[in-house]
Amino acid sequence: MKRFDEMTAAYADLVIRVGLNLQPGQELLLDGYGSPETVVPFMRQIARSAYRAGSRYVDITWSDEVQNLIRLQEAAPETLDYFPAWRLSRDLPIVEKKGAMLVVFSSDPTLLADQNPNHISTMMQARGRVLKPLQEARANGEINWLGVSVPGAGWAAQVFPDLPSEEGIARLWETIFPILRLDQDDPTAAWEAHVQQLSDKTSTLTQKKYTALHFKGPGTDLTIGLIKGHRWAGGRTHTADGLGFVPNLPTEEVFTTPDRGRVDGIVHTSMPLNFRGTVIDSFSLRFKAGRVVEVEADEPAAQQLLDHLIGTDEGAARLGEVALVPHSSPISQSGVLFYNTLYDENAASHIALGASYRLCVDGADKMSSEEYQAKGGNESVIHVDFMIGSDQLDVDGIYEDGQREPVMRDGEWV
Amino acid sequence: MKRFDEMTAAYADLVIRVGLNLQPGQELLLDGYGSPETVVPFMRQIARSAYRAGSRYVDITWSDEVQNLIRLQEAAPETLDYFPAWRLSRDLPIVEKKGAMLVVFSSDPTLLADQNPNHISTMMQARGRVLKPLQEARANGEINWLGVSVPGAGWAAQVFPDLPSEEGIARLWETIFPILRLDQDDPTAAWEAHVQQLSDKTSTLTQKKYTALHFKGPGTDLTIGLIKGHRWAGGRTHTADGLGFVPNLPTEEVFTTPDRGRVDGIVHTSMPLNFRGTVIDSFSLRFKAGRVVEVEADEPAAQQLLDHLIGTDEGAARLGEVALVPHSSPISQSGVLFYNTLYDENAASHIALGASYRLCVDGADKMSSEEYQAKGGNESVIHVDFMIGSDQLDVDGIYEDGQREPVMRDGEWV
Repeated sequence: MKRFDEMTAAYADLVIRVGLNLQPGQELLLDGYGSPETVVPFMRQIARSAYRAGSRYVDITWSDEVQNLIRLQEAAPETLDYFPAWRLSRDLPIVEKKGAMLVVFSSDPTLLADQNPNHISTMMQARGRVLKPLQEARANGEINWLGVSVPGAGWAAQVFPDLPSEEGIARLWETIFPILRLDQDDPTAAWEAHVQQLSDKTSTLTQKKYTALHFKGPGTDLTIGLIKGHRWAGGRTHTADGLGFVPNLPTEEVFTTPDRGRVDGIVHTSMPLNFRGTVIDSFSLRFKAGRVVEVEADEPAAQQLLDHLIGTDEGAARLGEVALVPHSSPISQSGVLFYNTLYDENAASHIALGASYRLCVDGADKMSSEEYQAKGGNESVIHVDFMIGSDQLDVDGIYEDGQREPVMRDGEWV
Repeated sequence: MKRFDEMTAAYADLVIRVGLNLQPGQELLLDGYGSPETVVPFMRQIARSAYRAGSRYVDITWSDEVQNLIRLQEAAPETLDYFPAWRLSRDLPIVEKKGAMLVVFSSDPTLLADQNPNHISTMMQARGRVLKPLQEARANGEINWLGVSVPGAGWAAQVFPDLPSEEGIARLWETIFPILRLDQDDPTAAWEAHVQQLSDKTSTLTQKKYTALHFKGPGTDLTIGLIKGHRWAGGRTHTADGLGFVPNLPTEEVFTTPDRGRVDGIVHTSMPLNFRGTVIDSFSLRFKAGRVVEVEADEPAAQQLLDHLIGTDEGAARLGEVALVPHSSPISQSGVLFYNTLYDENAASHIALGASYRLCVDGADKMSSEEYQAKGGNESVIHVDFMIGSDQLDVDGIYEDGQREPVMRDGEWV
């Protein structure tokens, strides 16, 4: 058995070499968010791996989520609508430099739970507005990028509430090591094989040219139109320049871009959503002609939060992603609810409100904003995933001529 | 006796209210450097104090000095001559916004001791070149700013090498609390009185209009010319807009700007210098017509480091500050060598190589670079203080007509 620090070092190498596929000479923007006790040591391992892979410079920032809490507690509410523009002038040049970007999270999902959701939303929207061009560059596949989560006290307390903090963090690492295939002799080879399987699945689905998918499960009866010329993505993605990278580690999903105007029916979540520090146990959304027309949450606070989310901008009430994940995925099989989208979204099929990925639409990288939306693409400052998959979910593919065929039954590929 | 966290919170308040004199509506750039275990909690207390004082926004960055070590260990040496320009585009707008700036240090003075000094120097020079306009804005009194040090493991290990880490950190805090007058009932009132005394001393010295100071002590026989129209500063400084602030906490010094062309003789340091992670026990500099013409250090590595420092640019071989501190200062009386310029420079009279402070020269804020240097001001990307004061230092003031009078005897004000 490998030692703990060998495992975390191997994780850093995996992120740099398989995840980002960082090239010699590439600059890396490395951004940490959350608990310094856990993020900072891992960022050091990442930087070491990056320089060893030949990175020219690792440009580092770290954001303290507790400072968000302090701002919410102490600052005048009318000042919350500000986010500094320098952040974009730091981040965006990475696109021209053909650099890479990595975000390391270790956040406490309940930290902001007692704060005014309007105030949180104001802060997050200000940030989203400033960083929109960067989000678009990522969505357009202009850079190789990745987001990873490392266990911290807040996250561990959610997943293993009965364990003391240190023990919970250790247990969380132990839980994710096999999910990250770090317990295997050659994690890189294991990931190459797995990513190839996902790629084969995306090819098959892209060739089907379905006009829509129909989801049926407990509380769910939803038809999601797919754009003509849509592509399925998953596992390895490629930048516009053809550099392959894996934008999520772990990853078990294949996904594409829904038609922003053709989503109809009702969908009920199958797992809790951790949204900006608040855990929403479950909710339903009803769609008509692509747009959310009804939100039903089990608690008033969650209802308010979702109403705000959907009201962020025009695209926030429409879908930007549909992703299929078999119920037998290792994350689902771990039996652990991670309260963390990067993990939970790879446990179950899911959809997302907000911005869609241009890389899933033929020719979209050359389209204006108007052309892209006319084609069915969706734009928004938000992109929020929520889980709808379970062992009771059936998915049908619908061809243009109306014929349909089973894609998933009881949560598994047919 | 106040509790530990009350003391550190009082320290944060002192920094915000007396040190920066942060105004309602002012934005604050808050930059942490060094050990996250100690810097991050204090930055949180600072941000809380700042918002309570009415700050509009606290814009936070934190730099991990261990990442400097990793870069030196792993990156290709030819890449070290890079520092990202975004850092200036983040920092400099604070001048236009009439905001404030605070740097919190908790660095390990020996962290980079085994690294190639040429490489360290290359990294630091790249940083200095990018940030030069900001350093100039600070030197010109365009913003209220402050640098403070908080105890961390590396610093504590230097000061109390025989104590275990946690104990050393606690002892260091206990040592600085009275120096920071935080043990007093009303630290703010204590600082107001102390700062008034320093202001009185600067008025007296400015009115003397000395043309030069003569320093005599063990290994030291140095005459430092003073610019015609020089002003002494200390305690409270004022921005160009007239906002008073105290740019160092603690502070015991009064200082002015030497004439870059009129420094002659030899000076020997009286305390070790912690320079970019290396502690140099002692060294001598010989000046001729303002310029260092000979460096003598006790070790080859120190010699090399100093030669590099002085070779940074034309102004690096000339003086930018002369500061007087009585040997009876509380820092000196603590009997502790802090290996930290922010503390040690307030234990003893000192001088600095590199950039001088325009605020100490009448009308300098309106002068071009050429005019300022012709007047005797010094410009450089560096500003490195080193201690020359002791209980054996005598200082004479020399009037323009050649008459002289004692200013300090045996390290005390006459």
